Amino acid sequence: MGRVYNFSAGPAMLPEPVLCQARDEMLDWQGSGMCVAEMSHRGKEFMSIATQAEADLRELLKVPDNYKVLFLQGGASSQFTAVPMNLLHGGGRADYINTGSWSKKAIAEARRFCEVHVAAATDDCKFTRAPAQDELNLTEEASYVHYTPNETIEGVEFPYVPETNGKPLVADMSSTLLSRPIDVSKFGLIYAGAQKNIGPAGLTIVIVREDLIGQPITGIPTMFDYKVQADADSMYNTPPTYAWYLAGLVFKWLKDMGGLEAMAAVNARKAKRLYDLIDGSAFYSNPVDPQARSWMNVPFTLDNPELDERFLKEAKAAGLTTLKGHRSVGGMRASIYNAMPEAGVEALAVFMQEFERSQG
Amino acid sequence: MGRVYNFSAGPAMLPEPVLCQARDEMLDWQGSGMCVAEMSHRGKEFMSIATQAEADLRELLKVPDNYKVLFLQGGASSQFTAVPMNLLHGGGRADYINTGSWSKKAIAEARRFCEVHVAAATDDCKFTRAPAQDELNLTEEASYVHYTPNETIEGVEFPYVPETNGKPLVADMSSTLLSRPIDVSKFGLIYAGAQKNIGPAGLTIVIVREDLIGQPITGIPTMFDYKVQADADSMYNTPPTYAWYLAGLVFKWLKDMGGLEAMAAVNARKAKRLYDLIDGSAFYSNPVDPQARSWMNVPFTLDNPELDERFLKEAKAAGLTTLKGHRSVGGMRASIYNAMPEAGVEALAVFMQEFERSQG
Repeated sequence: MGRVYNFSAGPAMLPEPVLCQARDEMLDWQGSGMCVAEMSHRGKEFMSIATQAEADLRELLKVPDNYKVLFLQGGASSQFTAVPMNLLHGGGRADYINTGSWSKKAIAEARRFCEVHVAAATDDCKFTRAPAQDELNLTEEASYVHYTPNETIEGVEFPYVPETNGKPLVADMSSTLLSRPIDVSKFGLIYAGAQKNIGPAGLTIVIVREDLIGQPITGIPTMFDYKVQADADSMYNTPPTYAWYLAGLVFKWLKDMGGLEAMAAVNARKAKRLYDLIDGSAFYSNPVDPQARSWMNVPFTLDNPELDERFLKEAKAAGLTTLKGHRSVGGMRASIYNAMPEAGVEALAVFMQEFERSQG
Repeated sequence: MGRVYNFSAGPAMLPEPVLCQARDEMLDWQGSGMCVAEMSHRGKEFMSIATQAEADLRELLKVPDNYKVLFLQGGASSQFTAVPMNLLHGGGRADYINTGSWSKKAIAEARRFCEVHVAAATDDCKFTRAPAQDELNLTEEASYVHYTPNETIEGVEFPYVPETNGKPLVADMSSTLLSRPIDVSKFGLIYAGAQKNIGPAGLTIVIVREDLIGQPITGIPTMFDYKVQADADSMYNTPPTYAWYLAGLVFKWLKDMGGLEAMAAVNARKAKRLYDLIDGSAFYSNPVDPQARSWMNVPFTLDNPELDERFLKEAKAAGLTTLKGHRSVGGMRASIYNAMPEAGVEALAVFMQEFERSQG
């Protein structure tokens, strides 16, 4: 078949122009006679790729000069460990906001290294909303405040950036980074697995304020020490070079698309198309507070779950794949990251309406 | 220019048929309508890729059933930490053999978690040989014995597998795994960064005997816990899917080439061609004990180092790239992993002879 519209939560679609360029350069990057995956990471060819990728990411996110941008391995799950190891700074406590599955994983790992104070939790409503600023019970003893701006599984997104009274704010932005402009200066540390909006799985971006690094706990793996990685320009050991290159192509594509303000407008339209359809239907439902609905992950259920399998089968036949919801939530989930074209969302919307008409 | 012969120590050349297949499948893997990098790691398409890659690697290396094969992130440098964290088993001491730059890095990291007893070291001869079995001063208290079968920088390779009297033998095989058959049952744990003989940087292979896992130290990052990774089939979090796929293509290519016995014959010929040339010349030198010369990394110096730059420049013009030696050793280094064709080694040999004739 031709290319499908793939609604996977991650790894997820990549922009077709990025794939075409990677394909065309596979055997010979710009006259070097090498695939990027074959290049020494210390050679001038790869160094130029790495440097340009970082510059483009900094430009897209307007990263202030006093922040380091790291290109690491290990996914957000490694950052669940690295964050307390690097940011406790001799303290024994951190505040975490619990808004869903990924918050819970971050909390569970942090508890192995410090006392976690849950500053707010929305489990009372099955993680279908974001807590308001005045619900956040932040503590004086915390070394930092951690939250998950977008919960990939529950489809919940904070509509605001928490105010933390000067405490470093740490954000797992795996499924939202680059979906819209952000003010990096509000954060102490931002991390994101690449496999949603950045590039292929196997690359992890960390953006960290310089003054926060250099005081790790005893027994930190050297690879997890932000200071070591920052001092080595993310090349303490061999970095995931090909993933870094693909991410660089994605950054270039985002610039070609008009940058993050333009992406935000497109992403807002894509999400609205699906939520409007769901809200206007007695056949589909989404349980999330409209103020906190994710632009990136749109979970929805069929009111008659007996139709789930048929929905998935017919969607797949229509070239709309990977719509099955996470097992912990059930139903469907349409992940519509930057690389999902508006035409893909429109095709899904038309399919959903048609399916409702034929089955409803 | 066309494809070059790239003698990089890693990331290094990949087999051209692998790159061609990856190129052809970039926008649509086997009718799925997706690039492999876009696939959910939990979907049946990627699961089939992952399972086949592991099966092919097990077949190539004849991995016994009581060993787990893990596809991880973080490179050998992460394993420098993970090995003591997982294998100390409550003990406080490990034996390490020090044969060069990578041994030293492994030792430095292990020292952060236990007492390291250096069972043998060859720094007295600037790491130009491998210690003999009867030089190994192994201790009763050690939980395991660690060594580096092939030192990538010094070009030293053990001509034998150390006997450890039942202690688990741990080997950093980053630059030798898959270059020849090995008897996996002699090892407790084998690890290797992918970027030499396996695939792109960003993937790390760990082969570990099952009875050795499940007793990690307190405070181990969950991502470093072999038991967690083994129980999750290396999918505790999102694995580096595209790198895993490329590694699978390399494994398939190795099978097409006749497996590891056939590769060993080719690799022995390739290495012999260069060492014979060097030994037969008064212009080039290699300081390594002939019994311990690496098949994979051939360092050599020009007796007149003032010619180094010209050598590199003319080699590059002849399509022979990345020959500069590691800064700690100087001179040249030709890394000739599996994917370096015999024709590439022959082209280098002819160039070296021609250069000697014109300059000598």
